[in-house]
Amino acid sequence: MSSADGGDAPTKSALKKAAKEAEKAKKKAEKAAKAMEAEQARAAADEDYSVGRYGKLPMHQSQSCQNRERTDISTLTAQDDGKQVLLRARIQTSRLQGNKMVFLNLRQCTNTVQALMSVTKDTISKQMVKWAGSLADESIVLVEGVVKKSPEPIKSASVSEVEIHILELWLLSGIESRLPFSLEDASRSETAPEVEGQFNRVLLDTRLNNRVLDLRTTTNQAIFKLQHAIGNLFRDYLNTNGFIEIHSPKLQGSATESGASVFKVDYFKGKAYLAQSPQLAKQMAIAADFERVYEIAPVFRAEDSNTHRHMTEFVGLDLEMAIEEHYHEVRDLIDGMFKAIFKGLKEKYRHEIAVVRQQFEAEEFKWEEETPVLTFKEAVDLLVEDGVDREALDDINTENEKRLGRIVRAKYDTDYFIVDKFPLALRPFYTMPDPEDPTLSNSYDFFMRGEEIMSGAQRIHDPDFLCEQMRAKGVDPDSMKGYLDGFRLGCPPHGGGGIGLERVLMLFLKLNNIRRASLFPRDPKRLEP
Amino acid sequence: MSSADGGDAPTKSALKKAAKEAEKAKKKAEKAAKAMEAEQARAAADEDYSVGRYGKLPMHQSQSCQNRERTDISTLTAQDDGKQVLLRARIQTSRLQGNKMVFLNLRQCTNTVQALMSVTKDTISKQMVKWAGSLADESIVLVEGVVKKSPEPIKSASVSEVEIHILELWLLSGIESRLPFSLEDASRSETAPEVEGQFNRVLLDTRLNNRVLDLRTTTNQAIFKLQHAIGNLFRDYLNTNGFIEIHSPKLQGSATESGASVFKVDYFKGKAYLAQSPQLAKQMAIAADFERVYEIAPVFRAEDSNTHRHMTEFVGLDLEMAIEEHYHEVRDLIDGMFKAIFKGLKEKYRHEIAVVRQQFEAEEFKWEEETPVLTFKEAVDLLVEDGVDREALDDINTENEKRLGRIVRAKYDTDYFIVDKFPLALRPFYTMPDPEDPTLSNSYDFFMRGEEIMSGAQRIHDPDFLCEQMRAKGVDPDSMKGYLDGFRLGCPPHGGGGIGLERVLMLFLKLNNIRRASLFPRDPKRLEP
Repeated sequence: MSSADGGDAPTKSALKKAAKEAEKAKKKAEKAAKAMEAEQARAAADEDYSVGRYGKLPMHQSQSCQNRERTDISTLTAQDDGKQVLLRARIQTSRLQGNKMVFLNLRQCTNTVQALMSVTKDTISKQMVKWAGSLADESIVLVEGVVKKSPEPIKSASVSEVEIHILELWLLSGIESRLPFSLEDASRSETAPEVEGQFNRVLLDTRLNNRVLDLRTTTNQAIFKLQHAIGNLFRDYLNTNGFIEIHSPKLQGSATESGASVFKVDYFKGKAYLAQSPQLAKQMAIAADFERVYEIAPVFRAEDSNTHRHMTEFVGLDLEMAIEEHYHEVRDLIDGMFKAIFKGLKEKYRHEIAVVRQQFEAEEFKWEEETPVLTFKEAVDLLVEDGVDREALDDINTENEKRLGRIVRAKYDTDYFIVDKFPLALRPFYTMPDPEDPTLSNSYDFFMRGEEIMSGAQRIHDPDFLCEQMRAKGVDPDSMKGYLDGFRLGCPPHGGGGIGLERVLMLFLKLNNIRRASLFPRDPKRLEP
Repeated sequence: MSSADGGDAPTKSALKKAAKEAEKAKKKAEKAAKAMEAEQARAAADEDYSVGRYGKLPMHQSQSCQNRERTDISTLTAQDDGKQVLLRARIQTSRLQGNKMVFLNLRQCTNTVQALMSVTKDTISKQMVKWAGSLADESIVLVEGVVKKSPEPIKSASVSEVEIHILELWLLSGIESRLPFSLEDASRSETAPEVEGQFNRVLLDTRLNNRVLDLRTTTNQAIFKLQHAIGNLFRDYLNTNGFIEIHSPKLQGSATESGASVFKVDYFKGKAYLAQSPQLAKQMAIAADFERVYEIAPVFRAEDSNTHRHMTEFVGLDLEMAIEEHYHEVRDLIDGMFKAIFKGLKEKYRHEIAVVRQQFEAEEFKWEEETPVLTFKEAVDLLVEDGVDREALDDINTENEKRLGRIVRAKYDTDYFIVDKFPLALRPFYTMPDPEDPTLSNSYDFFMRGEEIMSGAQRIHDPDFLCEQMRAKGVDPDSMKGYLDGFRLGCPPHGGGGIGLERVLMLFLKLNNIRRASLFPRDPKRLEP
């Protein structure tokens, strides 16, 4: 078959065949070379050229201190375009796009920004992108990146003008258990109509059982900034008006203020009681010439009430002041204080109020420069006019309070008003009667959106009359010797009031349940977390 | 014997006798007339032309509201000479001079002014002066008078340039029991040498049993203004540094922080426990992304300690913050805060500090711009150098703390310093170990005048490592599920500290007993008043 020995010349078809085979072999070799090349490329890629740009950090134990500047997401604007930043944030959500790109929504408190990472020669490897996409929501990461102006507003983040192109990504604190609910579910509008099966509604109890997670929603971050603000505005107003802050003991030797339920404490070999209010202590401070005092402190109520507005422990904003001429000095000062709080919130916390509104839809809280003051009698008359049976109005119950709120809103265009001159029979023993009508008293309640937020009065400073009133209400004066002693040694006329911080917060924002206004609420059924 | 019938002329002696008798009659008549005049004068005086200018007012029930301006004693200066003023004040002391004049020392909080009243035709009667002189010390009066420049400085009052000439004096609130001690006795220097029998020393227990009276001394008025100031300076500094105030529950479902004694509360059908600190809650707030938080609230310690510096209830100034790089961020921030407090007190409360100094003599509190920071090891070395046996220095006890304070004072000329890097074994389970030496920890104590006022540290934020450390210290991780859950869902590195408000106040002023820095102190033996 060889052509070398001179015999027959190769046929045309044989030549064609040989050419074909040569071609085939060449293609095969080329393919092999290509495969080899690809294999080499793959091997090169597997080296992961991003090592040193991502990963889990060792537990932070304060190893070094370089004082590198950290960026606050809320400050980012288009003017930061091109700036390199370093920041610590939660991963709110992450979304892998194919295997070359990942989007992360980064969150700090109430603020979020979009960040992205895409495979880039020599810097961002596929491995790095894959790892970033695998991080659990709520992980805390340290991000180094470059701020880039976004071509169009980013709707999914609170920072809409820019995004961050990630250069390095480090896991600072991971998630070691399944999230009981997603923050997305926990952040949905409470007032929007529910579409069956569309998404999970997170029940209040589930939230409170997992309060640390729940508190991370932008809504809760805003709610507790506002709680902080109310306390500060309260203090600022009173400091400016010559008040001093006091701290009275919560452990009491005897159960104070007749009737109301009080928690009992094992106190070494005896018993103590938790103060239901700083009422007695702040009056004693007045008898001790402190003139004008306030206190912000927990108060305890052992009442087995399981309503939207009762807790067994809440924060009392209490104040008390000497009176020169008339208890309306006190009523008017408190009124001025509330208006200062409302104004301060509206002017300085617009962003936080707007964040809460997204979840808890509500009309903006309204008040008037001149607060409407109704007497109790006038309030009753308004309710009667509105169709309530006068017989039922010895006191105004919760339902009628709300009705009164609606009537006043319609009549005076305000969510905030005062009812003055309550019947004496409805008030505690230390309440000063009206000078002209002994069935009435020098006392008042303040209302927000038809719910009482503060109760106050002129107090009796005359010890003999106080004893008389104690006995009339079934309180033994001997059981309150320390309190009475203060008055026996001379005490100026005085009055004050007590405010529930969480109630003010709940009603200002219309949160509908006081537990939402308390960091870790306590009620008869809840002592954890 | 008549001479009318013309007989003998009267004898010389008879004439003399008649003249004498006439003289006698005349004198008698004159005397009678004088007596009559005196009687009339007395009758006129008894009419009491001062009626309507003095007396006891009816119980103040807010009858009228004239908005008359009241004067603050502290504002009175020579420039007010001739001005008519109305003010409410306590009678500190009164002194009758004969029956025509009375001096009253009038007091408002830390300020006093001399007032006087003397019998004046048509206005101030003897009755009025006598009544004024009869008013008990500590009575509350309403005084109307004219300010008069005093010819020489009045040493017995804080206002030395003027006195008040009383026109009207009304008793607003009287004294219905004997004063257990005089304010004069209660205000004497605690540090001056006692002269036997010269005056009564009022014991601390007597003071605390009658705390309302005791609190009226100018010393106590100043102490509690300073307590108020510390709280406000603490908050101002932290607010400026991006912290928010939280309010954590004092009622806990389980006994927190192993070992330390905790008060048990009857909670409906179960039990609750009073929080010994907001430690767990504030760490949970950090896990909930609050970033930087503080709290001012009561903390409860069921420790049967009866020392000068322990109470069962005190006010905790607590703070916690996320760490970016190193726990010294926290340590340095707290240091900055203390210096801001000291500076604020020194600059804005000079008067109050001076008032306290009169009763509690002390060198002015000293601090340096650059606070000395010793490591625990360096502190131990200093004590060893000073003669303390090294064997006894596994921990630094109270006595050695004081000694260290003296050494540091001598070496650095400061009453304020920091000890860093405590042995891990001395700290609670949640303390972060040192990254290089696991027997040490990232923790620190702050000292004032040789007593610890704050303890703090970086905390463990890694849940697995935290469980490990809990078990090592005999704490069951299952008993603290709510706390651990926070870390399992991701928590940034963080640290903080807790300060005892009363300790800072006591040591700044050198009051020597913490009860003096508490409004109504509580200890194992005291729950009243």
